[in-house]
Amino acid sequence: MDDSMFSLVVFSGTDDKLNAAAVLAVGAAAMGRKVNVFLQYWALDAFRADGILKDHGVAPEAGVDGATLVQQHHGAHWSELFRQAKEIGDVGIHACSLSMEMFGFEVADLDPLVDDQEGVAAFFAEVDGPVTFI
Amino acid sequence: MDDSMFSLVVFSGTDDKLNAAAVLAVGAAAMGRKVNVFLQYWALDAFRADGILKDHGVAPEAGVDGATLVQQHHGAHWSELFRQAKEIGDVGIHACSLSMEMFGFEVADLDPLVDDQEGVAAFFAEVDGPVTFI
Amino acid sequence: MDDSMFSLVVFSGTDDKLNAAAVLAVGAAAMGRKVNVFLQYWALDAFRADGILKDHGVAPEAGVDGATLVQQHHGAHWSELFRQAKEIGDVGIHACSLSMEMFGFEVADLDPLVDDQEGVAAFFAEVDGPVTFI
Repeated sequence: MDDSMFSLVVFSGTDDKLNAAAVLAVGAAAMGRKVNVFLQYWALDAFRADGILKDHGVAPEAGVDGATLVQQHHGAHWSELFRQAKEIGDVGIHACSLSMEMFGFEVADLDPLVDDQEGVAAFFAEVDGPVTFI
Repeated sequence: MDDSMFSLVVFSGTDDKLNAAAVLAVGAAAMGRKVNVFLQYWALDAFRADGILKDHGVAPEAGVDGATLVQQHHGAHWSELFRQAKEIGDVGIHACSLSMEMFGFEVADLDPLVDDQEGVAAFFAEVDGPVTFI
Repeated sequence: MDDSMFSLVVFSGTDDKLNAAAVLAVGAAAMGRKVNVFLQYWALDAFRADGILKDHGVAPEAGVDGATLVQQHHGAHWSELFRQAKEIGDVGIHACSLSMEMFGFEVADLDPLVDDQEGVAAFFAEVDGPVTFI
């Protein structure tokens, strides 16, 4: 059992949640934890090579004011934070095979931040401890 | 402390998140992990005996294209995946008493996939490790 | 590694999810677990001193009927549940520095339930085990 691994299943595809996921990934990597990211559904779609920097919206409860705040906040883009996480630590980013099939994607369609695709069985073969779902 | 138990608090009631939850439950059960599912709010409502197979919508960020993709994807329904998880492993599905009270449900109103109802204290009496919230 | 700590990153700012988070915090505290809450984005906004009791809406899938059910349910408000959790156990509630900066908040702008603000590095210095994201 490796509980020190920080396993993130990222499902949501809005910029606010992707930023929250990236901040946690950077923080965990900086503390020396191995980080394992599994991209599903709308999060996977957000990692498309031709669209990673586009506006992916925010959670509905943000409202117009919240959406404006997120857009005007001058921090690093979440994709840049994931890049930093990979530079400072042991961070793998995997695409969920079922979601890849649903979208009709191949790995080449995704941003190079994504290492590969794998099924849920392979994910759980590596992760035998906690899972954080975002 | 039993960290090998995979504890899922399922709150969201859209078909995409319920499918993600079911895929993780099947994956964990297939790897021999005990799985403990606690249904709250809109997830509980989705398990109603008279409505489990109806269209429960998808996350707002899916948009019309995403919703169509989910509907056209020919995989097993999430209720069938939970059924498979129960067949292959030690998987309990419990309804949160507070949510049951809010909806005015009794256990007989729910799909037979749900084993029983329990309060949050009983949930934490069984779960002393990680919790994944969906 | 302290796996008995229950670490909640609360991101969502709707009343239903905040209530789910508060119920889990109370349950974990009642079972003697240390609870560590980290408020980000819309959850942080919901803890504003001048607005904690206002209507924060519910998840979109609730629909009009679900929203009415949540409003009419006569349970304790989620802020009261967090207060109870702090009374019965060792529960810290911390504001995420990045989100504080985004909103332009200072700790004095927040309800006294919030103990302080901290960065994600400080969060992971305390939390070396599982993380539940809501």
